Amino acid sequence: MPRSIVVIGGGAAGTASALEARRTDRTAQITLINRENYPEYSRCGLPYVLSGVIARPEAVIIHEESALRQMMRIDLRLGTEATDIDMKSRMVNAESLNSGEKFSFPFDMLVLALGARPGSAPVEALKGKKNVFKLRTMHDVEEIRKHASPGKTAAILGASLIGMELAEALSRLKVKAIVIHRSPETLSTLLDPDMSQLIRVEAEKEGVKFALSTTVQEVGGSDEVEWVKTTSGETFQVDFMAVATGAPPETGLAVRIGAKTGKNDGILVDDHMRIGVEGVYAAGDCVEYPDVMTGEPNLFQLGTVAVRMGRVAGANAAGGDVTLPPLLGTTTSKLFGLEIGTVGLTTRDMNRRGMKPPMYGKTSTSTKPEYYPTGKPITAKLLVNADTQKIMGAQIVGGEDVAQRANIVALAMMQGITVEQLTKLETCYAPPIAPVWDPIILAAESVVRRLKAAR
Amino acid sequence: MPRSIVVIGGGAAGTASALEARRTDRTAQITLINRENYPEYSRCGLPYVLSGVIARPEAVIIHEESALRQMMRIDLRLGTEATDIDMKSRMVNAESLNSGEKFSFPFDMLVLALGARPGSAPVEALKGKKNVFKLRTMHDVEEIRKHASPGKTAAILGASLIGMELAEALSRLKVKAIVIHRSPETLSTLLDPDMSQLIRVEAEKEGVKFALSTTVQEVGGSDEVEWVKTTSGETFQVDFMAVATGAPPETGLAVRIGAKTGKNDGILVDDHMRIGVEGVYAAGDCVEYPDVMTGEPNLFQLGTVAVRMGRVAGANAAGGDVTLPPLLGTTTSKLFGLEIGTVGLTTRDMNRRGMKPPMYGKTSTSTKPEYYPTGKPITAKLLVNADTQKIMGAQIVGGEDVAQRANIVALAMMQGITVEQLTKLETCYAPPIAPVWDPIILAAESVVRRLKAAR
Repeated sequence: MPRSIVVIGGGAAGTASALEARRTDRTAQITLINRENYPEYSRCGLPYVLSGVIARPEAVIIHEESALRQMMRIDLRLGTEATDIDMKSRMVNAESLNSGEKFSFPFDMLVLALGARPGSAPVEALKGKKNVFKLRTMHDVEEIRKHASPGKTAAILGASLIGMELAEALSRLKVKAIVIHRSPETLSTLLDPDMSQLIRVEAEKEGVKFALSTTVQEVGGSDEVEWVKTTSGETFQVDFMAVATGAPPETGLAVRIGAKTGKNDGILVDDHMRIGVEGVYAAGDCVEYPDVMTGEPNLFQLGTVAVRMGRVAGANAAGGDVTLPPLLGTTTSKLFGLEIGTVGLTTRDMNRRGMKPPMYGKTSTSTKPEYYPTGKPITAKLLVNADTQKIMGAQIVGGEDVAQRANIVALAMMQGITVEQLTKLETCYAPPIAPVWDPIILAAESVVRRLKAAR
Repeated sequence: MPRSIVVIGGGAAGTASALEARRTDRTAQITLINRENYPEYSRCGLPYVLSGVIARPEAVIIHEESALRQMMRIDLRLGTEATDIDMKSRMVNAESLNSGEKFSFPFDMLVLALGARPGSAPVEALKGKKNVFKLRTMHDVEEIRKHASPGKTAAILGASLIGMELAEALSRLKVKAIVIHRSPETLSTLLDPDMSQLIRVEAEKEGVKFALSTTVQEVGGSDEVEWVKTTSGETFQVDFMAVATGAPPETGLAVRIGAKTGKNDGILVDDHMRIGVEGVYAAGDCVEYPDVMTGEPNLFQLGTVAVRMGRVAGANAAGGDVTLPPLLGTTTSKLFGLEIGTVGLTTRDMNRRGMKPPMYGKTSTSTKPEYYPTGKPITAKLLVNADTQKIMGAQIVGGEDVAQRANIVALAMMQGITVEQLTKLETCYAPPIAPVWDPIILAAESVVRRLKAAR
């Protein structure tokens, strides 16, 4: 009897699970249940579909239906929602969201790639309003596009990465974006305030308005929101709104069959992505997983992490024996002409966890030698544990060549080397490419000097 | 009595030595003897001064005279050649190349940063010709610029990195460049033939002509070269020529006081950059130094290596105790729109050393996800020792974001991790920046698959 594997969730983690299960077991029956009507597409690509940088929305579909169905022999069920898991009969019950038809899928092994929900709106009055959107699915993009014509004004709730990417996309569409955020700091899960400030300055140059340290108190309008009033007393006329207030892990189905959740409300798993229920794995945005920096479970919710988790879950569900190493959360984005690269913890992360404040080093320099005409500004900040001298995090913001520098620090952190060892890295140099002393090396040297001075 | 330190050679290594000596010892008497009439400038910047990309030639001067003299209190002697070292009286004898005046500089500690000579011409008849140039000094640039007017034709002897950078610079000046090279492979110290081919194709698109597997047999003209005939029987009419056939280490002064040279004709030093003669150090292009890959001395001749060597030599000459780790030779350049990033050994290097042929992995992909419009092609090749599974070298060629990927592999090699460990690196991803699976990771996975298949 071939093994029967059911994957709930057709996003990056679920699809990677199904594909890796197929690569591991050529004969398994593999079913992939996807709420959405599209097979896996790049969620990270959605802001660029919205802005039109990616001209054809279908371009972000990663695997065509035919590739999944014929080439990989995956029983792909689009527009289908898993409603219930019966662990006694080992059956997933599901329902077509289009036709209402009901299905039951028997499984030997189950992978839960349930994803995350869009964050909730801060006030009850926003619920049910016809011009209040989120940006998590292709459908959301289609809805926002209908409203995002030039000259309109939109309020975005939340200065998270997705909130800021949305603000950028709207700016490109000549929609005036107002970012309303409860804390004084934007992008605070990724960057220390001194670093996120670099982005905000550029955003403001592009016409984005920020209402910080405040939230929505009151909204006007009947079917549609017409104005919002903040707790700080400002009133904004808006044509539409978007809610970008985080993405709580979707864990309902998992918890009902006995999964445990952690401090970040994500499903807890072991290094094989097992949830502690016989034959059940989890992967992706619904999962929290130990980080390299502390060993404690952390919520990453990154595409790269989703595919890595998915591969491990899928391989193991199909009889493999693969483990996922602790994670770093290496992240990049591009906002308002600046690239961002981050890895590890921010200063706020460390404070929140009660860790000793990091020793930091920061360098602002150019991506090329001073004498070469096309260099762009780049700022690199490293956070180091003063006792172990190991790197706890890095934040890099600049005009170019940022992401791969975050990857360099990620490798250093993966290897657990000290910041002094990092200064020994022999980086390459050429006038049209990079300076003799790389910004990362300079930032590391700056930390080393502070560590020596503190002794 | 303050310590007296003399540095012979005012390039990158010598100047870094003098500056680091000053940082290490505030009271030392430091003399920096420089043949040239400019203080340290970026030798790597010269092709871009030639092409006019760097508009003001003086821009490539790294340290102004006043900074060296007043701020760092270095006795800078420009246009001055060290003629002789008297070890008994511990005195460097020197002569002004401009006035003929003679000087003697007493030293307690001596740093030899003698640099390298331009490679010699392949035929005797080229010597003394007025239109035959090299590209090693600012003076050389000034000479070439006088001849490099649009529509002219130049033969370049040698398809080394400097030969190719020169060909690119001349192309920008609308000078027709003919690269004559004795082997069939261009850039063979940096790239395997399959990788250098990528560059050559772009060079040819820009109008560069290659005469490979041949050399100059005969030249015509009296004061100036008017035509060259190759051993393969082709004749080229030329307006001027440039010789770019390597850069043998300059070791004369060092050998005369007892320095040993190695297989690459460079000065041999220990990990403190000592040459084995009491109180004498060497640094820069004249030195060979153990590499990470084999532990054997290797000739690097890179600006980055020069400053690292110089810092160590200068610190130790001033009473410090600093060591230089084994080197990787991480190198980058940009040629004809393509970036090059390399580290470690090429296949040819490994063959020449009698090493087992490497297991390799190679990926050609895009710098961004397929669906994002602005990605550029990138090809990454990793060479791995099949027994130890450690990375021996990497070669990356692409339209952008190449150099920092070479640095990532450099860190992996510095740490001595296996290629399988490298596949675990959690690289960052975002549509406008980088793909989910980085080219480096894909190349590493390709090697891992081959290693498994070969077991």
